[in-house]
Amino acid sequence: MRRTAAARIRYALLDVDGVCVMGQRAIPQSAAALARLRALVRGHRLITNQSQEPCSSVMQKLQRWHFDVRPGEVFSALSAAKSHVAIRKLRPLCLLTKAAMEEFEDVAMERPNAVVIGTAPAEMHYKRLTEAMRVLMDEDSELIAVNKGRYFKENGEFQLMAGPFVAALEYATGKSARVVGKPSPDFFRAVAHDAAGPDVLPEQVVMIGDDVRDDIQGAMDVGMRAILVKTGKYRPGDEEICTPAPLAVVDCLADAVTYLEESGVVTE
Amino acid sequence: MRRTAAARIRYALLDVDGVCVMGQRAIPQSAAALARLRALVRGHRLITNQSQEPCSSVMQKLQRWHFDVRPGEVFSALSAAKSHVAIRKLRPLCLLTKAAMEEFEDVAMERPNAVVIGTAPAEMHYKRLTEAMRVLMDEDSELIAVNKGRYFKENGEFQLMAGPFVAALEYATGKSARVVGKPSPDFFRAVAHDAAGPDVLPEQVVMIGDDVRDDIQGAMDVGMRAILVKTGKYRPGDEEICTPAPLAVVDCLADAVTYLEESGVVTE
Repeated sequence: MRRTAAARIRYALLDVDGVCVMGQRAIPQSAAALARLRALVRGHRLITNQSQEPCSSVMQKLQRWHFDVRPGEVFSALSAAKSHVAIRKLRPLCLLTKAAMEEFEDVAMERPNAVVIGTAPAEMHYKRLTEAMRVLMDEDSELIAVNKGRYFKENGEFQLMAGPFVAALEYATGKSARVVGKPSPDFFRAVAHDAAGPDVLPEQVVMIGDDVRDDIQGAMDVGMRAILVKTGKYRPGDEEICTPAPLAVVDCLADAVTYLEESGVVTE
Repeated sequence: MRRTAAARIRYALLDVDGVCVMGQRAIPQSAAALARLRALVRGHRLITNQSQEPCSSVMQKLQRWHFDVRPGEVFSALSAAKSHVAIRKLRPLCLLTKAAMEEFEDVAMERPNAVVIGTAPAEMHYKRLTEAMRVLMDEDSELIAVNKGRYFKENGEFQLMAGPFVAALEYATGKSARVVGKPSPDFFRAVAHDAAGPDVLPEQVVMIGDDVRDDIQGAMDVGMRAILVKTGKYRPGDEEICTPAPLAVVDCLADAVTYLEESGVVTE
């Protein structure tokens, strides 16, 4: 059966953690798979919800593990926050790590009318959160959460993520945060726009991820196709959680690229 | 009409802020009114929701303004937290000011299985809140909030109260805090028990307050009587918010005591 042009996949989004890398090592064959994917599609982005490092650091890390990643090909929840701030011409008070601030270096921040908050231990204290609350007391100001994760594990110990502090500011001010990271529909639209320009159709984009909710369901909810990989945080049965079923469920990124090469969803 | 014995008021609870004092001054005639109240009822308590100072400091402040207040007559949200911790034999990690910790000096705190949180700027930072989150990851551990206020104004500027940090820990752990301050029913029961012993009937207790929700409705919800005073945070029309109507609505504490003296609700 000949597929219609619209149904052909032209762009790919790949989750970084759990798909390309796992903790402090690259997932076997994933660097080579990325090279094959680059040859297969018109554009791609490596995406991550983490909010502590700028995209340039994520790129350099991947390069050290021999991934061929070029400037502009990493898109993070910070990129989505920056994009939202730029479109709305907001002047944010940023509760972000020093490294993450690199992403905002050309953004005006005097007389703030918004708060951008990510995981940033050194910023999460009474004085700084009180400053943020005061900005948000103004009716028109906006609370932008890079993500709303609860906690993560580091060296075997639980650490707070941005979410609890987002919840604190929401409770203090009665405002709801705009969460710009995965699985926000705005995130997927922004990264597709970044990879493929304004005329991209969602069905031309495939998301390859290990998180059935944040990657797979999130991408499918905006009309993208999705491939679930069984690395990272995948647990048996995850594919039954999402609706509709993903385009494919495969063992790893290398198998996802093989699927794209061989199934005819990209080439005719 | 002769009242039944149960209907007579024998004990009184007085809110401190907005009823006895306002900011840094005593409300006119309130010290003399307290002396008249002492002669009228069998027992009374001065109550406060603030969580930054121990009861001994509140007592000393009131004494400096010439209120006749004696040890044990101030009951705060901290007292309620302490009472809950003692009854349940909990070992709390306390996120409280150094001064407030005085209230807990005889409480065991090793291997904590509870978190007590109040307004305590110096404790509200990432490391300490992460410690609290770890305690609360244990299924059986309890989160006890001295209050859940959003913010207060100090020198014309908004400051965060405990509430936003309580919300942060609730979001991180999925647990709901037990709020022990006003208007918690447990608070009113605990202070009545403290003033009058275990056999007190709620209708024998009158609450005199300026906050129609936290003082008046809270006390009436456990079956106490209540007198709303028009000092402090009272706003015209407040008396229409609560159900049933308060026993009386009067201008100030002095008038509340006059009402108790003259209406026959205390004496036959």
